[in-house]
Formats: sequence, structure tokens, C-alpha cells
Amino acid sequence: MSTGAMTLLNDDRLFPADPTMRNIARRLHAEVRDLPLISPHGHTQAAWFASDQPFPDPAKLFVQPDHYIFRMLYSQGIALDDLEIGVEHLKDPRRVWRIFAQNYYLFRGTPTRIWLDYAFQELFGLEERLSAATADLYFDVISERLQTPEFRPRALYERFRLEVLATTDSPLDSLAAHQAIRDSGWKARIIPTFRPDSVVDPAFAGFAENIAKLGQLTGENTELWQGYIRALEKTRARFKALGCTSTDHGHPTALTADLAPAEAAKLFEAVLTDRADARQQELFRAQMLTEMARMSVEDGLVMQLHPGAFRNHNRKLYERYGRDVGADIPVITDYVHALHPLLNRFGNEKNFTLILFTLDETTYTRELAPLAGHYPCLRLGPPWWFHDSPEGMLRFREQVTETAGFYNTVGFNDDTRAFLSIPARHDVARRIDCVWLARLVAEHRLYEDEAVEVARDLAYNLVRKAYKL
Amino acid sequence: MSTGAMTLLNDDRLFPADPTMRNIARRLHAEVRDLPLISPHGHTQAAWFASDQPFPDPAKLFVQPDHYIFRMLYSQGIALDDLEIGVEHLKDPRRVWRIFAQNYYLFRGTPTRIWLDYAFQELFGLEERLSAATADLYFDVISERLQTPEFRPRALYERFRLEVLATTDSPLDSLAAHQAIRDSGWKARIIPTFRPDSVVDPAFAGFAENIAKLGQLTGENTELWQGYIRALEKTRARFKALGCTSTDHGHPTALTADLAPAEAAKLFEAVLTDRADARQQELFRAQMLTEMARMSVEDGLVMQLHPGAFRNHNRKLYERYGRDVGADIPVITDYVHALHPLLNRFGNEKNFTLILFTLDETTYTRELAPLAGHYPCLRLGPPWWFHDSPEGMLRFREQVTETAGFYNTVGFNDDTRAFLSIPARHDVARRIDCVWLARLVAEHRLYEDEAVEVARDLAYNLVRKAYKL
Amino acid sequence: MSTGAMTLLNDDRLFPADPTMRNIARRLHAEVRDLPLISPHGHTQAAWFASDQPFPDPAKLFVQPDHYIFRMLYSQGIALDDLEIGVEHLKDPRRVWRIFAQNYYLFRGTPTRIWLDYAFQELFGLEERLSAATADLYFDVISERLQTPEFRPRALYERFRLEVLATTDSPLDSLAAHQAIRDSGWKARIIPTFRPDSVVDPAFAGFAENIAKLGQLTGENTELWQGYIRALEKTRARFKALGCTSTDHGHPTALTADLAPAEAAKLFEAVLTDRADARQQELFRAQMLTEMARMSVEDGLVMQLHPGAFRNHNRKLYERYGRDVGADIPVITDYVHALHPLLNRFGNEKNFTLILFTLDETTYTRELAPLAGHYPCLRLGPPWWFHDSPEGMLRFREQVTETAGFYNTVGFNDDTRAFLSIPARHDVARRIDCVWLARLVAEHRLYEDEAVEVARDLAYNLVRKAYKL
Repeated sequence: MSTGAMTLLNDDRLFPADPTMRNIARRLHAEVRDLPLISPHGHTQAAWFASDQPFPDPAKLFVQPDHYIFRMLYSQGIALDDLEIGVEHLKDPRRVWRIFAQNYYLFRGTPTRIWLDYAFQELFGLEERLSAATADLYFDVISERLQTPEFRPRALYERFRLEVLATTDSPLDSLAAHQAIRDSGWKARIIPTFRPDSVVDPAFAGFAENIAKLGQLTGENTELWQGYIRALEKTRARFKALGCTSTDHGHPTALTADLAPAEAAKLFEAVLTDRADARQQELFRAQMLTEMARMSVEDGLVMQLHPGAFRNHNRKLYERYGRDVGADIPVITDYVHALHPLLNRFGNEKNFTLILFTLDETTYTRELAPLAGHYPCLRLGPPWWFHDSPEGMLRFREQVTETAGFYNTVGFNDDTRAFLSIPARHDVARRIDCVWLARLVAEHRLYEDEAVEVARDLAYNLVRKAYKL
Repeated sequence: MSTGAMTLLNDDRLFPADPTMRNIARRLHAEVRDLPLISPHGHTQAAWFASDQPFPDPAKLFVQPDHYIFRMLYSQGIALDDLEIGVEHLKDPRRVWRIFAQNYYLFRGTPTRIWLDYAFQELFGLEERLSAATADLYFDVISERLQTPEFRPRALYERFRLEVLATTDSPLDSLAAHQAIRDSGWKARIIPTFRPDSVVDPAFAGFAENIAKLGQLTGENTELWQGYIRALEKTRARFKALGCTSTDHGHPTALTADLAPAEAAKLFEAVLTDRADARQQELFRAQMLTEMARMSVEDGLVMQLHPGAFRNHNRKLYERYGRDVGADIPVITDYVHALHPLLNRFGNEKNFTLILFTLDETTYTRELAPLAGHYPCLRLGPPWWFHDSPEGMLRFREQVTETAGFYNTVGFNDDTRAFLSIPARHDVARRIDCVWLARLVAEHRLYEDEAVEVARDLAYNLVRKAYKL
Repeated sequence: MSTGAMTLLNDDRLFPADPTMRNIARRLHAEVRDLPLISPHGHTQAAWFASDQPFPDPAKLFVQPDHYIFRMLYSQGIALDDLEIGVEHLKDPRRVWRIFAQNYYLFRGTPTRIWLDYAFQELFGLEERLSAATADLYFDVISERLQTPEFRPRALYERFRLEVLATTDSPLDSLAAHQAIRDSGWKARIIPTFRPDSVVDPAFAGFAENIAKLGQLTGENTELWQGYIRALEKTRARFKALGCTSTDHGHPTALTADLAPAEAAKLFEAVLTDRADARQQELFRAQMLTEMARMSVEDGLVMQLHPGAFRNHNRKLYERYGRDVGADIPVITDYVHALHPLLNRFGNEKNFTLILFTLDETTYTRELAPLAGHYPCLRLGPPWWFHDSPEGMLRFREQVTETAGFYNTVGFNDDTRAFLSIPARHDVARRIDCVWLARLVAEHRLYEDEAVEVARDLAYNLVRKAYKL
């Protein structure tokens, strides 16, 4: 029995125990481990790179922004106030860190553990396991390193060998930070993503005010349907000018609609003046997906759809701490009927890519792989959110490949707010894809030279192509 | 090819073929195989231990009460009458046993085969396979042993190293058998579980009579909502006094409601006087789950919810043989919307534990793991009923761990009517947990010393903690 | 790394890498690989065997009729016109073949690749991989061989060691080709299957005309319910006379109904005169499933139900190319409630077999295995359509066996239009069943001599029994 590791990470981590498969996986992984990273979808902040200020202390960096971490601690009875969730300037970051460290065992068997150990060892040189006993050591080492130039955001971007990094941005965002990065002359490709939820979802807080602000920003009369549509088109063009290649849509369901223009205009008036019930609000969101698809056909922006979360399920926490405190829960999601109106309009268009994500894994074999294995516009996004994990990724490949193949998928999205976890997440994705390919090779379903090609496509080429990067 | 086993059980049963994983699994299993058994949820009878009478013949013991067995025989065209299902005193138990024995091949690949072979060998010393050829040998050996003192219920309890055994009991039960065990001075911990379906489900046979009887037992006026609620509270207290630490709720769905008291009172009147339609009956069950949660917050009883079965699907068999003849079939189950009212009320309470079970495995990654990975009151019960099997348990760990971790699960429930199968069922659960952990260790996702700790927690500590034992 | 295979097929293909399991799988497979093929459900044409004309060129043979192939090509932007889909006499089959060949990499990881490589090597002796470089070689070799006597349909039937081959036929079909085969004196067992969708589904194109034609063929007044029912009964008898042992039903859902005769008659009148809405049409289909079950109880024909596809999802392609262009997409399917009316009537009948298929794998553990593990009339068909693949078959066994056992399943269906792929498909099924059994043996859940018996049952005996062949 191993009783105290010299290092946190084993070179063979995530590879199968079987020696034949492990050896194949190692060889495949050697072909992709050093490829540059492309991060086409995530939630880092352009402002970090514009200002290039040091990241703060370990608690603020690792614990506070990461709902994977604090929801698990909360599920075991640790109060969010003890973790200083929602606090702008932490009063006692060392205390928060110690609580986290002594409960680190809760993350056994989770991807969070894998991501964190990677960051601890690869970035901070820590090789003893995090626990109550090593909490202070970790806190001190990480705090110290964060003050060095090598840990500034731009230095890390380069160290991570990032080739493209996409942020996610509101149409109401001036994108000043993106402009500032460009103006600074720094040679990095950090690009915005057009995420219009705040101006297309009538249930979004401040919807009417957001629409009004959109009007001001674009010089359009957004009280009328036509002006509203033009304002969205203009904003997409503004995003494109700063390098944006894709849009992202986080709807409760995948419902789409294809209303006649007059009907859409009337519905817009109803939702804008708050006379629409929940069903009409849903119909409006549905119509807006089809409008967005139409704009994508015209301006070429790749469309991403992320449906299926019941947001803010824990009402008391929402009232006290607001959004994103770990109480978003997946629900059953239908794609076949829901996407039909949109696909009937644009499903066969040449200049259109719609990347589908899901929180409902039952749709992999039943709906998503058959849809993506037919419609030329459809591609399948990688396992998302709760499923962005070794088992989740394996299930994705096992369930999707036989119907959709590899070439209707789009490589990896790290989708993270945690900048320091980006290399760890890509490392997991590349390893798991190699595990899946190694099994196909070992079982004589694929030749190894083909598997090398596929591994490189999954790690690098497919994402470039799918996101038009 | 092996052509005739010396023994029914191999020491490495259920362990993976890969030598690395198998060796790790063996080491982990050695750490947990001799831990005492805790059985916090099951359907054995306290009366067996109160009277300590010998169990009857093999057919009555193994075939007649076990719907896993006779539903499989029935599915292949064997008449229930030929198995003497529903017959109080079997006319020809040897004939029933022979039918079972000659059809034992039907159980290949099922957990029933694993449980039975374990009991045959470990309890009765049988080492030849059961078949038409060995039917009489089995019948004779088992019959003979059952008459010996070592096979009395109390002797078996001790032999099984049971530390706690919970039965499942109606609020209308006097619990006289439980009292008798206590009075006898026998040092065993056999405790009741409060299962109120008969007095909270308006569709339960004799609902109104049951409510009246509840009133008599508690001295409350159960024709009125307040008296009914007090009667339930008093009965819970009566159960607690005999060691009860948990309640159990077997509803068709997981629906909960949170009505205003006046509305609840009115609904109670409607269901009691049989003026409620199916929708109102469902709403009443939903309301009662929230009432039970409120009582749990107050009295500390752990709450278990077992939803999702379409009961008595085969109408003809139900009319002829009554409940539990193997025709209960799982249905799609929603938790996210269904539990929302209850969780909004009590989801963040300190003194509340709600253990969720499912017959719909699609909810593991989509709903149950995300819910349990957030709400402090929620824990996930082990794979249940059809899923209490090697593959079912592996799917549970594979699908639940990455989001909910190990520490939001509660160890094993044998949930059985078949007392003699209890050690076999725990043996399977401990082996499969070791298999899962061995894979994590072999793939360098967990250190082996951590896996030992987790294995012991899953086999022993978590169940004690979750059920407050 | 292997860089250029001598052969396309490895003898160990699909077997697990682990040496213990692989060796067991090899031994089991040796016991079944040479058993005759039984194909109880498929879409080959009796006319091929009646006329025994050579198959045309490679493009017409492999690409044009196989929606698995052209939907994948279409999903990657290749126009159906470039593949000459829907064209009776291909203008440039070599060009079509070249497009297919240069895109053959898209099928990596799919069953299509496995089936094709098998046919290429085993039937045509091709051992270099198909690619742009080998496209012409393939085209020439295949074209040449197809003109030889050994590649005539009857010669291939014999070479494939087919023992029974069932086609799928409309009640309006004269079955002249089946009669011609019989009259020819050729000793093969090619039998029809009664597939009445065109005369029981009011949404089927030409429904009323079909009913009228049915009346002409049978001499019954099919404008009236009783005459319509008699016409169906007579047609079933006509099919039986030509060897038919089963019926097949391809409904959108599994809904069944059990209306009173007068109500059914009235509903028939409504659907026949096109006064029925979608709900009534669905109710009529539901009623007809129960009518078919009743006829099966009487005439002994085995009933197959294939529900759960959203047909012709891509409206533009449907309008241009008609049915079966790869845009049929699975949807969530319920069996528990849907089959209840039919099972309440006939679920316990001795002379009744209903074989259930699904496109919704979530029903395996939740609904289908529990239903088949109880009702004597029910059997589970093999993984179907998108799930007829190595991973799909493994999931089926992993998810179904523990509850339904092996003996409530019915062996393999190749379900293919592609006659040349039949041996390849059976080869995959036999291998995967051996893989699953090898795992059970290696993990000491089953003795190897039992596994041999089960392997032979799955490959040969169960299908004969289930389909009454």
C-alpha cells in the first residue's frame, strides 16, 4: 500500500490499469500532450489580462469563485458565511483556506480533486497532499508565488501555451478590456463571445432596462421589434470586430419557435411591457433562438446552445447570496421536438454551425448523436458542467461516437471561471480521449495510426474548425 | 474450461479480471469484509426474533416470499399456483423446490443467483450447483439444518454479526414484537422504522379505517387535521421510544407540496371523506411529505423517500394474489421540481436528513447527485430494488461520485424480506465498492490509503452517521 | 505503432484487452462462430432471391441504400445529390464511390466501419484500407466480383449459412416473390413478416386507399370495422401460408388501448373518413396494437413492436427525397403506462409473445427489463438501429441481464436492407455476447460451461424459440 506520495500527480493518471491499453494510451497522449491549448468557451475575465494585476490570496483564488468547491462543502453542513462567499474583501482568507483544507477529503473521486492537485503541483510545486496538516504550508506557498511576475495573468497565459482564449460577454458590455488588450500590443488572442441572455430572456433580472440600454448603446429604437433586432445585429458586428467568432445561449430549455414577423413583434411588445406569462416568455426565448440562428447564417458567428438547468433551486441561498451559489440543477431536456422549428428553417444551411450541449446525458444516444449524425449544421459540444469529468467524458465518447462519429464533435471546452485550472482541465480531456481511443485500438476497432490522427483532431484541429478560429 | 465446481463461491468473485485492479480490490476488501453488518432499512419481521421459532422448509423460506425469484419463473411461463404463491401452509414444498431447482439456470447473470449461492454455501455448506439433479439433496440438507438451534433467528442474527437491524412498520402496529425482544433481555439492536403509507396515502386500501384506528391508538380526534397531525407525532414518539431513528415513505412520485394550514386541513377532509380525485390524492401525499419533513426537523428522525414504482401493474395477478407479486414496475421519476416545495422549506435545516432513493437511474447524474452535492439535508440512498446488483451498484458509483462525492452517500441498505440473504447482499455491496475504489486507485485518481478509509466509511461509518445509529 | 495493416480484420476484434477475459471470449466465440445464421427480422427483398440477378455496382450496393452511410456524409456537408441518393440508375457510380472512399475516415469508431471492413475482406478479399488512394481498386474489384455466379443472391444466402431469412412485407403485397422462391424448388427458408403500418396507421400516406385495396385483395368490405378486421385476419392467414411466423409494428409510440367494439368501430369510421385529429389517430393506432395482440393469441403469430422514432425530422429533405433519408430521430418512449391496456388484456396469455424493441436506452433498466422479467408474454428484442453496435449491445446486456436474465431476450436481429452486411452484423453480435459472458466468467459470476450454453442460446436457440422457427 502506498502511504504518502512523493508527488500528487502520477504520469499515468486516468489511464486504464490494463497494460496493453495503458501503453497505447501513453503513446497517444505523447502525441497530444504538448499541443497548444485552445479555449473557445469559458468565463475568465478580459480585465485580468488588460490590467495584468496579481491574483489575490489562495482562498479568494480557489475557494470563493468555484461553486464546485463550496457547494460540496455546503452539502456537508459548512456555512457559506464561514467560507466568506459573496464577500468582496475576505476578512480571514487563511481561516477559509483551513476549513477547505481540512475538508479536502470530501473531494475524493471528484474532478475538482484532479484539477486542484494538478494546479498545486504543476503551478506551485506542492507535492504533499492538502489536509489540515498542510493547510498553512499551502497557504503560504501559494500566497508567495502569486506575488511573483511569473504568476501574473499574462505570464500564465503564455506559460499555459494558450493559443486562443474566449471570454463570455454581455451585449451591454463595452468590451473595453478586450479593446485595452488589443491596444496594449500584447500578442495574445483573447476574444469575446456574444452571450445575449440578459437581453433575450424576459425572465432575466432587469430585462426591460437591459433592452433600453441596448438601444442607447446601438442608437436603435429597441422599443420596437425591428429596432431591437437591428440593435442585436449591430452588437454582434461590434463583437466580431474584436475577434468574436461565436455566440452562446443559456436557455432553460432548448425550445425554438419560428413565428411570423408580425407575431414575433407582438410577442416582443408583450414581454417588454411585462404583460407576458411564463408560457409567452418561453415562446419569446424560443423565437429568439431562431432569430439568432438567422443572424448566424448571415454573419457567420457559430452558435452555442447550453440548455437544461433549473437555476437558483435553493431559494433561501438565492435571496441571500444571489446567482451561482451551486444550486443550479439539471432537468430532463428534449431536443428532438424543441429544435425542430429552428432546424426546419436553417438545419441545411451551409454557413451555419450550431453546437449543442446538454446536462441530460440520456439525450446522448437517443437524441443528440442521431441529430448531429444527420444535420450538417449540428455539432456536439463536449461534456458540460457536472459531466466535465473523467467518467462524464468517457460516457460521452462511449455513447456518442458510434452514431455521430468523432467528426461531429468539437474538441474540448474548459468552460471555467478558474483560470488556473485551465491546463488541468485540458489535461483531463486529452487523457480521457486517449483512453477511449486506446480501447478502440486494443480491441482492433481502429488502427493506431488512425487513433493518433483522431487524438490530434480532438485535442486541436476540431475546435479550430468548429469555432472558426 | 471449468466443468464442475468444488465450491459455489470463488474468493475473487465480482473482482475485475485485470490483475492490478484485482489485487487492489482484494486488499481493500480484506479491510472491510469482517466489519459488523448494519441493516438500517429492511423488511424482516421483529416477530421472528421475539418468538425465535425455526424457519420452515426451503420452499417457504426461499421461494415463496421472494418476488425476485417467482417473478422470473412466472416470466418464463411457470404458474404461480404451481409455486404455491399466496398459500399459507405449502401442500407440497418439495415439488415447489424442484420446479425452482430445475429452472435455476434462468437466474444466470442475476444478483439472485449470487445471493442464493452465497446462502447455500456459507449457511448450508452446499457446494454442488443447484439443478434438477441436486434439488432433493438441497431440500433435505436445508430442511434438516433449519431444525437445528444454530438456524434459529437469534442465532443467525449473531452469526451474521449484525449490529443493528431495522424493520419497517406501520403506525398501526403495536410494536409488541419489538417490545417483547427488549423485554426478553436478549442483547440485540432490532429497531422499528416508521412507515406511514397506510395513513398518509388516500389510495391505500382502507385509508379512512386506518385513520380511525390511528385515532384510537393515540387518543386523538383524527377526523380533524390537527388531531391527525398530533396522532402522527405521538406515534413517531412511540416508535422513537423503541429505538426507531428513521421514517420511510414509499410514494408513487417524489412530489411535495407546501400548502397553507387551512388549505391542508380542507384537503385532509376531502381525502378522508373520499371526495378527492386522483390529483388531490397526489397533492395530499405531497403535502404529507412536507409535514413529515417538518416533524423530522423537530424530532430528529431521519427521513427516507422511495418513489417511482407503478404498483400492481398486472391487474389479473393483483386481483388473484394481491400486492407484491412482482408486478411493480419503475417509471420516470422527477426530483428537481417535485422536491422543490419541501426543500424550499427545510432544505437548509441543520437537524434534518432526507435520504433519496430511485428506481430511475437516469436521475443519478442529472438530478440526484447535483441535489445531494448541494443541499445539506440530502443524502443518496444506495441502489434500490432492481438496481441492488453488481452492475447497478457500479453504475451508481460511476455516475454519482464525481458530483456528489462519497460522503453524500449513506452506505448499504439490504432492503430485504429474505433474512438469510442479508450477509450475501452486504458481501456484494462491499465487494463492488472495493471494485470501484480499486479502479480509482489503479488509475491514480485516489491513493490507496484514502481508498481504505473510504471503503471502511462506505461499509460501516457512513450508515451509522446517516441513520443516527 | 501499427502503420499499415496486412488485413482489415483482426481475429480478436471487439474482444477486451485483458488477457484473461480475451482468452475466455475466444473460447466462447469458438463455440458459436460457425453456428448457422437466423435472420428473423430484416429488410432484404424476396425479389432478389426470386430473380437471382447479380447485384449492381459498389455505389448502388453499399452507399445508396444505406442511410447509416449517407446520413454521416450528409452531416459533414456532402450533398445527397452528389451521392445520387434517390436516383434509380446512377449516372456516375465511380464518382459516388470516390466521395465515399475519401470520407471513409468519418466512420472511425462506428459500427458501419466494422460491418463494411468485414464485407470488404471476407466477401471481396480486400485487405488494404478504403481511402481516396484505394477507391478505384475497391470499385474495380467489387464490380468484377459482383458479376460472378458466387455473388448472386442465392449463392450468397448459402455461403452465409443462413437457415432462415425473414423479409418485411406490406399486407398489400401479393408476396409473389415469396411464392416464386417456393415454386422454384430452391431449398431456402425465406419467409415474409406481416407489417401492417400502411393499413393501421391513419397518418400513413394513402391510408384510405390502402384500406380500399385491402378490401379488394381480401373480398371484405373494409369500409366497416368488422370487414376491416376480417380482412386483416385473412391477410395474416395468407402470410402464414407462406411461412410467416411474426408480425411487426413500427408505431411512433408504444401506446395501446382497449376500447369497446362499438367505440373502436366509430373511431375506425372517423379515421377512415379523415375526420380524426392527431389524438384520435394515435388512439386508433393504440387500439390496433391490441387488436393485433388478440389476433396473435388466436393465430400464434409472434408480435414485434418497434416504437419511438420521430420520422422525417428534416422536412426539406423529406420533401425532396421522401422517407428513409436518415432523418428519423429517437424520442423519449414510455412502455409502462403505454402497454398497460394491452397487457391487462393479454399479458398472461399462454399463446402470445410480444417482443419489445426500443430506441430509448433509458428504458432498459427502468421499464423493459422489469416488464420482461415479469410478464410471460414479453421478450426483449436486441439493441435496435442506432444501438445495434458494440457499445450499444454491451449496454443492453449490462443493463438488462440482472433483472430480466438472458432467457427473456431473443437473440439477434440484423434488421438490415444491406444483404451483404448480414454476416458482419451477426459476427459483431456473437462477439459482444461472448465479451459480456467472458466478463461474468472472469469475475466468477458464471461458470464457463454455463457461459458456453448461454452463448449458444443467444446465438441460435433463443431466436428459434422466440420466433417459433
